[in-house]
Amino acid sequence: MKIAICGAGTVGTGVAQILHDNADLIKLRGGEAIEIAVVASRRPPSEGPLADLEFTSDLISVCGRSDVDVVVELMGGTTDAKHLIETSLRAGKSVVTANKALIAEHGDDLFEIAAKHDVSLKFEASVAGSIPIIKVLQESLAGARIGWIAGIINGTANFILTEMASEGVSRSFDTVLAEAQALGYAEADPTFDIDGTDAAHKLAILGALAFDQPLRFDQVHIEGIAEIDPSDFKFAKAFGYRIKHLGVARSSGESLEMAVYPCLVSTAAMLSGIDGVLNGVLVSSEAAGETFCCGAGAGAGPTGNAVVADLIDLQRQGLRPGSDAPRRTDESLKMLRPEETEAGFYLRITVEDRPGVMSGITTVLADFGISLDKIMQEDAANHRATIALVTDSIVQGVVEQAVAKLEQHDAVLGKIQKIRVF
Amino acid sequence: MKIAICGAGTVGTGVAQILHDNADLIKLRGGEAIEIAVVASRRPPSEGPLADLEFTSDLISVCGRSDVDVVVELMGGTTDAKHLIETSLRAGKSVVTANKALIAEHGDDLFEIAAKHDVSLKFEASVAGSIPIIKVLQESLAGARIGWIAGIINGTANFILTEMASEGVSRSFDTVLAEAQALGYAEADPTFDIDGTDAAHKLAILGALAFDQPLRFDQVHIEGIAEIDPSDFKFAKAFGYRIKHLGVARSSGESLEMAVYPCLVSTAAMLSGIDGVLNGVLVSSEAAGETFCCGAGAGAGPTGNAVVADLIDLQRQGLRPGSDAPRRTDESLKMLRPEETEAGFYLRITVEDRPGVMSGITTVLADFGISLDKIMQEDAANHRATIALVTDSIVQGVVEQAVAKLEQHDAVLGKIQKIRVF
Repeated sequence: MKIAICGAGTVGTGVAQILHDNADLIKLRGGEAIEIAVVASRRPPSEGPLADLEFTSDLISVCGRSDVDVVVELMGGTTDAKHLIETSLRAGKSVVTANKALIAEHGDDLFEIAAKHDVSLKFEASVAGSIPIIKVLQESLAGARIGWIAGIINGTANFILTEMASEGVSRSFDTVLAEAQALGYAEADPTFDIDGTDAAHKLAILGALAFDQPLRFDQVHIEGIAEIDPSDFKFAKAFGYRIKHLGVARSSGESLEMAVYPCLVSTAAMLSGIDGVLNGVLVSSEAAGETFCCGAGAGAGPTGNAVVADLIDLQRQGLRPGSDAPRRTDESLKMLRPEETEAGFYLRITVEDRPGVMSGITTVLADFGISLDKIMQEDAANHRATIALVTDSIVQGVVEQAVAKLEQHDAVLGKIQKIRVF
Repeated sequence: MKIAICGAGTVGTGVAQILHDNADLIKLRGGEAIEIAVVASRRPPSEGPLADLEFTSDLISVCGRSDVDVVVELMGGTTDAKHLIETSLRAGKSVVTANKALIAEHGDDLFEIAAKHDVSLKFEASVAGSIPIIKVLQESLAGARIGWIAGIINGTANFILTEMASEGVSRSFDTVLAEAQALGYAEADPTFDIDGTDAAHKLAILGALAFDQPLRFDQVHIEGIAEIDPSDFKFAKAFGYRIKHLGVARSSGESLEMAVYPCLVSTAAMLSGIDGVLNGVLVSSEAAGETFCCGAGAGAGPTGNAVVADLIDLQRQGLRPGSDAPRRTDESLKMLRPEETEAGFYLRITVEDRPGVMSGITTVLADFGISLDKIMQEDAANHRATIALVTDSIVQGVVEQAVAKLEQHDAVLGKIQKIRVF
């Protein structure tokens, strides 16, 4: 099988390295060798395993080459990459991509083109690097009715939260972000990692597969991690939780909620132990129960391995479409708005430290029918105090009304922090 | 697609339940319905989802039926089940099985028959229930050079070790085993779960897949859990470990070690947190790093789901062989004997409590070139004491010699406990 590698960055280099180092295994397991016919990229790779291969800066030219069976799109972005993939599929070439933004935003159109031309569009590498979650959803759980899926699917955000939570020095979000950038764990422009967009791309893909729905990136509720304060980690810990940025898709069978947000996760839950740049995904289904996978979420090796696994799948299925075309039911599930969903909530309220404040606040909560699971108060300087609490499960809209009411209370100072409990 | 279900026990019932409950999903995702043409079993099922289906007690008759596309073998055992599978494959019918003993002991012959008749023999359900480890090894890591695989792959043994380790009451192996039997977590005859045979069957399968080798059940080194003493949990905990029964397959590229044994596992390692009847498998490869999966290891739903996933795979690949035939290299790896392998070791030594004993024991260890990582002494009644220690990594044969020498020491009482550190 001959491939074109389009994009000569970290993942492209990783793929070439694996194809080189493990050529014996790949031939044994896939039945024939996988050779790189051409590397296409804006600039020629100057070193590493891509450097000595045939090179072109004319990306689209690879689609017309008779010596290219599969086009591997590793450029990123949603304009040139989309054009490349469409042209490849229309030319009868299967495509392997790691491009989550493209799949999340334009995947339905691309899958349709692939089906029309009887070729495959594979995307294991688009979500969670070394965790084969696409295959698990499409194949291992093909007979299972999934209830929900929850994952730590952005390594940069998880690294920042892990560092902010680490013992000893209490460090602000900005300090830790600067560290992550220095270590190469966050990009120069980390906006999409921090504001939740990257996780939302991945969640849209997982949600569509888990619930046989069209891709609905524009309906994923998105919250990032920039508003988490060092004190939130302290209170979360005291209550028996850690703070993680989760992507969650959940269906009752009639409705669907998809969101990415910071959550308090019980220290007893496996997800809370996934630290640093690792990813972890938990899938719950009636038949199989809870299945959990974790591993490296990104990087040349983990993401490259996912690309190579897709290529070997294509080899084994003789370049024909396999189980990789997402299925859809005719029943489009009703999307729940965030305020319609239910959860426990953590609130952190800065108040004036004077008699009757705790009573005033708990009375407001009681008036909204919100019952408390845990509460604590910590006095600060300047006659201030912080009240931190966790509610029992309640509709988010009710909590939002209660928070709005509390923020009008004359003893409450500033904005109230509100974080969901998973 | 029409199937015969052979074996009407827990898993057979689970498969029928899933096919019934999720018929809509299975048709959507697999392309057509999966129907049970006939149930074959010694006794007819009296209730549940298998009860109203066509029944036969003539197992072999299903192999000749033109309305059966796939034979699902869920009887267990290695005699009748082997005959059934061989006859099915020779009749041109693909087979799905959950039978680890049969695959581990006779899989190579069966795969050869399947290949000769151009049909599939699929066995995801044979290892670790809801964890899709067979697919992960055969497909997701098809391009990866695996270094080692380590798993908690027997839920009964893990339940017993978890209970023995739990806080508060210190309970003996026999007491906890009786509890497990009362709860239905251990069978009336739990021999194979406790002596490691069941885990060894599963490890033989994982090792063969991970390293492209023939199945080598007879070369798996097997140790069970019956010799673990309540005090071992206490010392392990004090040193920062938990005790787990692991299956481990490891290859240097030239040699291969495969063993199941109790191990001390660091409390910081994900595997140490897998409790009760859960299973967990960790795979390390150069490309993908460490990928970890955990979930229910057995039961109607989890194992039934794995059977159904195999059936849907068969549907999607048009009943032709897919990626499910294990590959083999021509290079047969040299098997390492246990005494040739290296690890840290935990030793628990009962001694007379008198001056010079600690010095005597550590001198013997030093004479064998064994360096210590951790050591502690606890005094007991009757002028006795227990010395517990963990060595640095050392060849097992050397530790065995040192233990033999120590057991001759005049202050050492009885047998020395020796447990590997993972």
